[in-house]
Amino acid sequence: MIVIPLIERKRDGGRLTREEWSELVVEYAAGRVPDYQMAALLMAVLLNGLDDAELGGLTDAMRGSGACLEYDPATVPRVDKHSTGGVGDKVSLVLAPLVASVGVAVPMISGRGLAHTGGTLDKLESIPGFRTDLALHEVRRQVERIGAALIGQTSEIAPADRKLYALRDATATVEAIPLIAASIMSKKLAEGLNGLVLDIKRGSGAFLPHVKDGLELAQTMIGLGEERGCRTVALVTAMDRPLGRACGNALEVEEAVAALQGEGPPDLMEVVYALGTEMLLLAGVEDDVKRAGRTLQEAITCGKAVEKFREIIEAQGGNPDVLDDLAVLPHAPSVGVYEAPAAGYVDRVEPRVIGQGVANLGGGRQHMDDGIDHSVGFVITVKPGDRVARGQPLASIYAREPADVRMGRDALDRAIRIVHDPAEGGLPLVSHRVTAKAVEILG
Amino acid sequence: MIVIPLIERKRDGGRLTREEWSELVVEYAAGRVPDYQMAALLMAVLLNGLDDAELGGLTDAMRGSGACLEYDPATVPRVDKHSTGGVGDKVSLVLAPLVASVGVAVPMISGRGLAHTGGTLDKLESIPGFRTDLALHEVRRQVERIGAALIGQTSEIAPADRKLYALRDATATVEAIPLIAASIMSKKLAEGLNGLVLDIKRGSGAFLPHVKDGLELAQTMIGLGEERGCRTVALVTAMDRPLGRACGNALEVEEAVAALQGEGPPDLMEVVYALGTEMLLLAGVEDDVKRAGRTLQEAITCGKAVEKFREIIEAQGGNPDVLDDLAVLPHAPSVGVYEAPAAGYVDRVEPRVIGQGVANLGGGRQHMDDGIDHSVGFVITVKPGDRVARGQPLASIYAREPADVRMGRDALDRAIRIVHDPAEGGLPLVSHRVTAKAVEILG
Repeated sequence: MIVIPLIERKRDGGRLTREEWSELVVEYAAGRVPDYQMAALLMAVLLNGLDDAELGGLTDAMRGSGACLEYDPATVPRVDKHSTGGVGDKVSLVLAPLVASVGVAVPMISGRGLAHTGGTLDKLESIPGFRTDLALHEVRRQVERIGAALIGQTSEIAPADRKLYALRDATATVEAIPLIAASIMSKKLAEGLNGLVLDIKRGSGAFLPHVKDGLELAQTMIGLGEERGCRTVALVTAMDRPLGRACGNALEVEEAVAALQGEGPPDLMEVVYALGTEMLLLAGVEDDVKRAGRTLQEAITCGKAVEKFREIIEAQGGNPDVLDDLAVLPHAPSVGVYEAPAAGYVDRVEPRVIGQGVANLGGGRQHMDDGIDHSVGFVITVKPGDRVARGQPLASIYAREPADVRMGRDALDRAIRIVHDPAEGGLPLVSHRVTAKAVEILG
Repeated sequence: MIVIPLIERKRDGGRLTREEWSELVVEYAAGRVPDYQMAALLMAVLLNGLDDAELGGLTDAMRGSGACLEYDPATVPRVDKHSTGGVGDKVSLVLAPLVASVGVAVPMISGRGLAHTGGTLDKLESIPGFRTDLALHEVRRQVERIGAALIGQTSEIAPADRKLYALRDATATVEAIPLIAASIMSKKLAEGLNGLVLDIKRGSGAFLPHVKDGLELAQTMIGLGEERGCRTVALVTAMDRPLGRACGNALEVEEAVAALQGEGPPDLMEVVYALGTEMLLLAGVEDDVKRAGRTLQEAITCGKAVEKFREIIEAQGGNPDVLDDLAVLPHAPSVGVYEAPAAGYVDRVEPRVIGQGVANLGGGRQHMDDGIDHSVGFVITVKPGDRVARGQPLASIYAREPADVRMGRDALDRAIRIVHDPAEGGLPLVSHRVTAKAVEILG
């Protein structure tokens, strides 16, 4: 394949045809286009953009580079949720069993944590024995049998995206909205979904902090999904502070289990119910927002949701005793309490500092192949806007050794800002709802 | 070296420091920065530009990656000429011996032909035995002894530029004026020059067809040269038709020898004298334009110039009999005449078509490692504006076999446009003179 004229065209602001994108992706995945040519093209795409037809061509080519899940059309509708990632974001662990327990199948492919953000796979692997590396035929069988599977990206799905993502990561070409959208949707569209709900984070802890960028990404992904028969809706949610209280892998599993047992923190539950409602509406099992919310709450109250999590854990080789006895999870040997250094109001709980703090304790990774310690992290019991007394316990630190507890305390000192005068509560928890037709401002 | 933050900075419109450019070039030349990262950076540079400090840092780093020629300051002044390349451009073959014969040293590093443009090295190698691959110590000794050397870029000079150029060629990042200027000047500044004259071609056969781009390149190179103690001047000359009559390697050597013997075509001589005058002024051996021109004409008339060419040929292992007996040069076995298909006026002699025609006859290359046939090409005896009769011979075709003569005729059919009404002569031959201070419009 002669690549130089294609690079020239993108460089000069032109466009490639659908067929050219398709051939380029196939040839690159096969190793017949060198990394340096693809790197130059990606930088030209980042700086000059992609139009809708090119975006579709690239997405379809990456999806087509691997296998796609296919289901009997007579089976239950399949809906997934994708988040752009945050700190303390254990929504998937609650949402997948909850939604599956009311008759919507959830074939969920998740990622691992990197830098300050956590990852659903790492959290799940806190549960002894839990396997996230199912083959696609196992995923399909499990989804058909119990209505949900929680897995990682397999090499079977969109291998060209995996190779391209590694190159983007090494060439400063990750931060391009069309490339981000194509990468996510090439994988999601391979899951054989009827619907997809996007959780677009905004605020200082988000991958795209500005709501404008988040909305652009949402609309780009919605366009890609809707044109390909996958109904897609996005909610924009706050990531200017951690979600819920726990930040750290096993600690977040604990909080997710509590949430499925009706004891979840209010902010986490608000986001779970908002996303879950959209999933039920997209699946067509409910047609009214209020009723959908009640259906989800009842599934938690009556115990159906937590039982579905038990089925998923058992199906994927994990120890289901975790639901009855949290001692099954790894526990950090050194625990400290962080007390308010002064009286006042909590103004900020900075999520990047918390997320990086978890990583520094050993609970996250700087490089994709770093190992992690599932037991460490923070449980932060205050939120922006709360009034606190001097010496009041604000957080617990879970660490491998006493020196790390001190390091965790330093992170909390930097992350939690206490001010004299009453402070605002931060961004609205769920601020926008985006569909193919409109952007609604909710809060 | 951590390259990603540097790529991010150029991507986002920022600048690298002099030290960062220096380290980047050293690490890339040593193979410690991968091609794909450099390719992404180059595309960001092409689309976002380089400021003057960055340009200087890059140029100095590339020059510093290899050896530099150094001369005893008491020796004669050294001045070179660089052309951006064209069709029928045998100026260097005439100019180097001519200028050297009047007391200015010319250590000239030239290139090979690629695509539609010819190269001085290929032309020189038409002369049996002529060696262009001298080592730098041989170049210095020859320049000190006879005042001129005509060589190719050695691996000793600016090896980082050579590696970067190969990458640019494969990633559509050649066409960036700062990168072009840095590449040329990193090599020229390694020659130990006191002065440099640039021949910036404009018109349809030029690498940069638009005069605006040519002037920008000229000013960029002049800035780089003057700041580094190498006085630099540029002339903009016409490349909307071939220069002189001969196009093809041995055919151009024949024309160059004729020119040194006082029989050169007028357009070639005009460009030679204009560039040569600038070289004498820069060297300080003349301080008046008219007198410099007379000095050069006399060097041809009295035979000094052609004798200097003899010395150069002998010094570099070539057969000097070529100056007395053109049978020494390779001759094509099949020769055809191209006659005017209609009466009228010559409106165009399209240089790209002619240059590509020479390459198709075997006299040029599409890839840097293709071999070439020195004997083939065209001699075109008409210029735009000339009146021609139907059936009048306009050109000769020199080819390897009769089928190629037909191919050459087709190329001439496409290249030479004859119109009914009197036609213009095309662009002025020497249109602009550019110095560090001003752009003078000459014609």
